[in-house]
Amino acid sequence: MKNFKFQNPTKLIFGRGTIANLATEIPIDKKIMLTFGGGSVRTNGVYDQVIEALKKHHFVEFWGIEPNPKVETLRKAVALGKEHKIDFIVAVGGGSVLDGTKLIASAIPCDDDAWDLVLNPNLLKSAIPFASVMTLPATGSEMNSGAVISNLKTKEKFSFYSHFPQFSILDPETTYSLPVYQIANGIADTFVHVIEQYLTLTNESILMDRWAEGILLTLKEIAPKIEQNHTNYDLMSNYMLSATMALNGFIAMGVSGDWTTHMIGHELTALHGVTHGESLAIVLPGTMQVLREQKKGKILQYGERIWGITEGNDEVRIDKTIAQTETFFRSLGLKTRLHELNIGEETVNEIEKRLKQRGSIFGEKQNVTPNIVRKILENRL
Amino acid sequence: MKNFKFQNPTKLIFGRGTIANLATEIPIDKKIMLTFGGGSVRTNGVYDQVIEALKKHHFVEFWGIEPNPKVETLRKAVALGKEHKIDFIVAVGGGSVLDGTKLIASAIPCDDDAWDLVLNPNLLKSAIPFASVMTLPATGSEMNSGAVISNLKTKEKFSFYSHFPQFSILDPETTYSLPVYQIANGIADTFVHVIEQYLTLTNESILMDRWAEGILLTLKEIAPKIEQNHTNYDLMSNYMLSATMALNGFIAMGVSGDWTTHMIGHELTALHGVTHGESLAIVLPGTMQVLREQKKGKILQYGERIWGITEGNDEVRIDKTIAQTETFFRSLGLKTRLHELNIGEETVNEIEKRLKQRGSIFGEKQNVTPNIVRKILENRL
Repeated sequence: MKNFKFQNPTKLIFGRGTIANLATEIPIDKKIMLTFGGGSVRTNGVYDQVIEALKKHHFVEFWGIEPNPKVETLRKAVALGKEHKIDFIVAVGGGSVLDGTKLIASAIPCDDDAWDLVLNPNLLKSAIPFASVMTLPATGSEMNSGAVISNLKTKEKFSFYSHFPQFSILDPETTYSLPVYQIANGIADTFVHVIEQYLTLTNESILMDRWAEGILLTLKEIAPKIEQNHTNYDLMSNYMLSATMALNGFIAMGVSGDWTTHMIGHELTALHGVTHGESLAIVLPGTMQVLREQKKGKILQYGERIWGITEGNDEVRIDKTIAQTETFFRSLGLKTRLHELNIGEETVNEIEKRLKQRGSIFGEKQNVTPNIVRKILENRL
Repeated sequence: MKNFKFQNPTKLIFGRGTIANLATEIPIDKKIMLTFGGGSVRTNGVYDQVIEALKKHHFVEFWGIEPNPKVETLRKAVALGKEHKIDFIVAVGGGSVLDGTKLIASAIPCDDDAWDLVLNPNLLKSAIPFASVMTLPATGSEMNSGAVISNLKTKEKFSFYSHFPQFSILDPETTYSLPVYQIANGIADTFVHVIEQYLTLTNESILMDRWAEGILLTLKEIAPKIEQNHTNYDLMSNYMLSATMALNGFIAMGVSGDWTTHMIGHELTALHGVTHGESLAIVLPGTMQVLREQKKGKILQYGERIWGITEGNDEVRIDKTIAQTETFFRSLGLKTRLHELNIGEETVNEIEKRLKQRGSIFGEKQNVTPNIVRKILENRL
């Protein structure tokens, strides 16, 4: 096990009817900005619950943070926050609203442009406190300090790390109105968050392996049931909790991370607007195929413990495990090949070029060069 | 899944050589009290590392916090802390030193007697900040707010909840010098911490079940190897991390707790000085036997997923699972019957009497009366 430091201060408030806790969790003298996405919370009752809980507080509203939040939009929220001397933000919606809010919270007390904060973490100073009412389990943003921000003008999508939410409220009932395709994306995103922290080196941590496998087994068990019934409280509770636990550091203690699949997926989203979960479903089988020697021990362990694949020699088992992983994503209704989205060779060229320009290198062994990324993408054409 | 709130602010600093972090984690202007146990840290190098790290800080030392820390001892530390206007404490040692330190930290800024704070949580106000250098994985005290305090005069042992450690340093190398019997006790304690949060109701949380099972499977895998070699870094890392994760709230989200076995075990320790881990190894098979109908679904799941017991009808499988649990404790070198410690019927009478006087009732269904405790103990004679 590698040396590590772990601390996660976010308070999790989980369960039915918990949005009402906003009333007591935020001091009454705070000047609050509520941040929202496109408006689905108006129709599913979440907006009404938030407004009811905050009826004694002072707040302004900012609407329109889009999926894969754009800095162009977030700058407007920063201006509104400065104008109203906002000192607390509550993100209401999915991971994109919260990701955007993390940048807004950092940019409000700061003179630099928001995109400069993304490009240059050294500019980051304090952030105003923020919290979330999370309605789309997927990104894990509700219990970590990370965000992913896009730039419309430059067609770039980068990670950004600032502060943890002070608290996050998760009411599984708020997920009942999610479209099936968004749930499928969320399950794929959660699954690949775990894979990035697990499908790396063997024998780093017996316990962390078990916990990563615990989330994967949970997703495997609930995914087909959720497809039949996504208004079942227990199923959606387990999905929501799994999404949070997949990316809050709890399965990362003392083990290596990969993140190759995410980094390539971000490029597909930046260039073609591929949804995040689907981009991961497309890329992961390629990452496994191209890095099958390096990841051999862990792929065999994953195949055996998650999918019960124990027959055949190592190469046969690895083939079966990669195929089973792709089958799982397809069972969610996601596409797993680039040609299904009319993405071809020219995109592979463009991504390789971009990564070379940036000097990017990925993976648990820091050996995934732009040329290896090309091979991964070629495997997915 | 039940509604829940979760927050754990403790910073975990884990790995080789991490005691040196004391130098930077504690502000230089703090007046520190170091609290210690009986002196084993003098011979295994831990004391020297602590003193080296704090060579620029001001500190006083308090020695002699015993296993199952006694309030009579802790009062002396409180007096020393008040005398020196201590405003930070570092517990160096095992769970007992840290448990005692939690009470000391609460009693220093307070006019009430330390035992009154144990008996009456309403008296608790602020506590001075404290941290730990944990050298004996077992109690999980390094990442929770709980403690167990004994009273020599009244022969009582009670739980006490105050604040979380600000940080805890865990260097697996500090465990190499532990006696085999202490390691066995620590593994049993960790195992039963998990069982108390897992062997309750079925279908509360798919994910929490998997994580609880993940710790149990880790302990099952490492215990026989540690018996052969308790200076193996990876084995001791997994043991240490498992002990912390077993009682920091990470496997308790949205699920019921039992704690019957712990409550009965505390009585055996208070009356006869039975070591904590051994008291649990003795009691648990009795709890499972007497509550086998109520816990049926979870015992079957535990038997299948941890011990691979799938043959026979339900009753046969439950019998096998209880027997296998006892076999596991015996494989650690622990006793599992009261007569092996010369404890007989009169102690069963005394415990039943005490629990009746206190109006105690235990268990995930709050139906374990003093009379059921009697049956559990009679099963262990």
